[in-house]
Amino acid sequence: MMDASKYHVGYYPPPVEPGHVYEWTMKDHIEKAPAWCSVDLRDGNQSLIVPMSLEEKLEFYDMLIKIGFKEIEVGFPAASETEYEFLRKLIDEKRIPDDVTVQVLTQCRDHIIRKTFEAVQGAPRAVIHFYNSTSVAQREQVFKKSKEEIKQIAVDGAKLVKQLSEEYEGNFLFEYSPESFTGTEPEYAVEVCNAVLDIMQPTPDRPMIINLPVTVEMSMPHIYANQIEWCSKHLKYRDSVILSTHPHNDRGCGVADAELAVLAGAQRIECCLFGNGERTGNVDAITLAMNMYSHGVDPHLDFSNMPAICETYERVTRMHVYERTPYAGSLVFAAFSGSHQDAIAKGMNWRKDHNLHQWTCPYIPIDPHDIGRTYDADVIRINSQSGKGGIGFLLQQKYGYNPPPRMREDLGYKVKDVSDREHRELSVEEVLYVFERSYLNHTIPLNVTEAHFKQQGGSDKIAAEVTLSIDGKIVSCTADGNGRLDAVATAIERETGMHFTLVHYSEHALDSDTDSRACSYVGLKWASGAETWGCGTDTDIIVAGIKALVSAINNK
Amino acid sequence: MMDASKYHVGYYPPPVEPGHVYEWTMKDHIEKAPAWCSVDLRDGNQSLIVPMSLEEKLEFYDMLIKIGFKEIEVGFPAASETEYEFLRKLIDEKRIPDDVTVQVLTQCRDHIIRKTFEAVQGAPRAVIHFYNSTSVAQREQVFKKSKEEIKQIAVDGAKLVKQLSEEYEGNFLFEYSPESFTGTEPEYAVEVCNAVLDIMQPTPDRPMIINLPVTVEMSMPHIYANQIEWCSKHLKYRDSVILSTHPHNDRGCGVADAELAVLAGAQRIECCLFGNGERTGNVDAITLAMNMYSHGVDPHLDFSNMPAICETYERVTRMHVYERTPYAGSLVFAAFSGSHQDAIAKGMNWRKDHNLHQWTCPYIPIDPHDIGRTYDADVIRINSQSGKGGIGFLLQQKYGYNPPPRMREDLGYKVKDVSDREHRELSVEEVLYVFERSYLNHTIPLNVTEAHFKQQGGSDKIAAEVTLSIDGKIVSCTADGNGRLDAVATAIERETGMHFTLVHYSEHALDSDTDSRACSYVGLKWASGAETWGCGTDTDIIVAGIKALVSAINNK
Repeated sequence: MMDASKYHVGYYPPPVEPGHVYEWTMKDHIEKAPAWCSVDLRDGNQSLIVPMSLEEKLEFYDMLIKIGFKEIEVGFPAASETEYEFLRKLIDEKRIPDDVTVQVLTQCRDHIIRKTFEAVQGAPRAVIHFYNSTSVAQREQVFKKSKEEIKQIAVDGAKLVKQLSEEYEGNFLFEYSPESFTGTEPEYAVEVCNAVLDIMQPTPDRPMIINLPVTVEMSMPHIYANQIEWCSKHLKYRDSVILSTHPHNDRGCGVADAELAVLAGAQRIECCLFGNGERTGNVDAITLAMNMYSHGVDPHLDFSNMPAICETYERVTRMHVYERTPYAGSLVFAAFSGSHQDAIAKGMNWRKDHNLHQWTCPYIPIDPHDIGRTYDADVIRINSQSGKGGIGFLLQQKYGYNPPPRMREDLGYKVKDVSDREHRELSVEEVLYVFERSYLNHTIPLNVTEAHFKQQGGSDKIAAEVTLSIDGKIVSCTADGNGRLDAVATAIERETGMHFTLVHYSEHALDSDTDSRACSYVGLKWASGAETWGCGTDTDIIVAGIKALVSAINNK
Repeated sequence: MMDASKYHVGYYPPPVEPGHVYEWTMKDHIEKAPAWCSVDLRDGNQSLIVPMSLEEKLEFYDMLIKIGFKEIEVGFPAASETEYEFLRKLIDEKRIPDDVTVQVLTQCRDHIIRKTFEAVQGAPRAVIHFYNSTSVAQREQVFKKSKEEIKQIAVDGAKLVKQLSEEYEGNFLFEYSPESFTGTEPEYAVEVCNAVLDIMQPTPDRPMIINLPVTVEMSMPHIYANQIEWCSKHLKYRDSVILSTHPHNDRGCGVADAELAVLAGAQRIECCLFGNGERTGNVDAITLAMNMYSHGVDPHLDFSNMPAICETYERVTRMHVYERTPYAGSLVFAAFSGSHQDAIAKGMNWRKDHNLHQWTCPYIPIDPHDIGRTYDADVIRINSQSGKGGIGFLLQQKYGYNPPPRMREDLGYKVKDVSDREHRELSVEEVLYVFERSYLNHTIPLNVTEAHFKQQGGSDKIAAEVTLSIDGKIVSCTADGNGRLDAVATAIERETGMHFTLVHYSEHALDSDTDSRACSYVGLKWASGAETWGCGTDTDIIVAGIKALVSAINNK
């Protein structure tokens, strides 16, 4: 049963005067990529129903490096044998590239810190990430300790980390997180962090990471940004501190938390691919990077082969990339609705016609080609909600057909009917089938089996000698016309007694490397007011036009 | 290939002086639920690979009403036969409750508006939602029209809507959307909306909805909030306008858009369950409502039976509820990690011990029970990352066992070993199996088959006469002790030559309605320094203790 009186706001805004204006609110967007730290192999891994095996972690690690991550939290080596072995393997087999730093997590507990240094000794560059929980709820319910006692845990942890970092071989950097920061009073979080900084004594040359995590989302995202800005201004050794954020997504605002935090002073983001991680997940690295990209900022992460990244991720984590995950989901560029398809098709043609470098297409935030996806399989998809614009676009993109607008509309209704009746999505091949079955090179009941033309002496008129097959019966006839097609049409009208007006004729080469055929479209208007359409293809442009005419007649 | 130079920021901040402070930035959280409008049956439906059938739409509609939606956009009746029929069915069969308003969408095109009124005539209360696209990209690429011409489309649409609403029977309310608002200059969007308002002449008694949609997310969420605040202050007839938002999620910030927009003046949210909808989806109604709930605000939507809502949704839309969707996903309350489980277990016990009404449990934003979910299946889940806290919690919750902390730790390692070796998640039944196999009522090689006790006259000492089975051999022995268990222990030591110290004894009734057994735990320390543990259950508390002792000895 729902009962809102069980809840209250459980976060702590910074202690500012009423009317205080935060500087981040004056900024519009992110202008430079932050430092990225992947926590897929630790936070992401620990949230899987079945955590990754050592081999799977290695494959994931290699992928992260290929994408361009320079900081990778590889595990909690004191908490699991697999993570210990994995870290040793990276170090002993020299699998850490020169420009990559690995990171290991440890609680501020004596034996865990000691085991962590055993695991990480000899690392060419490793961040020792130590943490303890500082929230009001955890102080009271879990640790049953005062503020001073909790701060002492952090200070003692820092002292031991510093001491062991001098005793063990290796190149060690440091990160401290007041875990459950979002349930902690900002002034207390800063007090604890400053006490840790006093022990660690970072310098601009050897800065230390202070990470203020959204362990659980408890406020709206702008409150978190306010907290970050306030802490950023109250941390000691600020020019020797790399301020980091680590948002989870309990309120569905992890991306907003991270982005607003960057405006507010965060310089580094801990994140996972596809928003994997505890509960609702860590903030999604892909969304963050591609959001910057879509604003013209190079994220320094390479997602140009998104389908391969999705495949590896799904295989090794046994998770599924949600269909609507920004940029990566299978449906996120998909347009089923007619009006969207129409706008996208027009936008794509505009882009082509104007030879634009800038991407400005309606409804599609980035060019799917940039991340290895295709227009026909990913963007325009056909169901009963679709319309002429998308269907026409697909035929043109995939098969080179460019039927005129009113013919597209006619085709749109036919395709919609099939999808509505069969209650399913249609493939582009099925759309082609409907198009061909409806319009292309129809020869029953009427066909033109031969046609010869002569220029009439002294006029623009063309004389045609036409052989027709009508319901299988062969007849010959002749007529003049203002052009070849007109002459054939007139001959057919005369022979069959039908009456129609040619309201549309167009032609183009079929847009394909291996196909040298011409393609013609004919629209006819009949006495009843009805319009019919036909399409003809042939290596001879004249014959293509006649086939289109005959098809349009046969569609009566 | 990724090339950020293809992109630039494509949104338009409001025209304000440098340093302008937006009022919404001074607000902390939402204090009152907005008006909710479900667009599941229109925007949600049109984005499905297979749109819903009429019967499926009806089932979804009934569910929306049960959840508590008072405004439901039921379709685009001029665009699809199914949606036309569905609307007629609702009206003709009087399926619209007195406190519910249905809404229909129409483009600002003459024949579409006319068909919409045919579909909606006779409705007891219906919002006619008309729109046209106003963005720079669509004006230029799709419509190829000037600002004035685009505004005229809106004005002409408004005039026709107003005229037909007077001609057709029914009770009509109105909504106008400048579609693709996020790609439109705010001052132009306001100009168009004000022109529409001048036609519609809303009053405080008959207000009109102005909806400023995030058709495509193009900016960070605070920029959208700025746009909303600016528009809210520049719309005419403001006290007769219900300002509405309709966020999509292309940048993963749909929830933030909606929430910040409410702070900035939006009074109404168009949304879908589970964030369904075009591409990355519409903003998720469940996340928005439950976010407010978690801050103590009654959302006026009832998700107390979330599992049933998930089941219906998945069946009729053929979509899957993503595992990490806030509040609704199968993993969003799950804690696999040992330290999280430990904190949750302590938090749950704290809650019980202090008989708290307020929910303050670490890591779990709301009580899963509130939405029909369970602690054991949804919260504490056991894999190789898990630890003593969660395992102990599960045993206690589900089976009533409450082993002491050091015994839990011992059990934790055993369970972790199984999960690590078998590389999979363990069920709570499997945890019980490991517990019982490891500790409970072990009688091989040693067993106590009989024990009789006598108070020693004139002292606190107890004399025990004990019958032992050792490797199947029966022996009798006697000893004194400071209590019954001590006496039995001494007798065993004397008879077998073993030496151990009893370092822990505790007991409790097994916490179950049908079980009147006692449960005892014994911890022994051996000369080697090793500790072993045993558990005994029996209807006789003395026997339970002896069984625990014997089990601990057998675990040597």
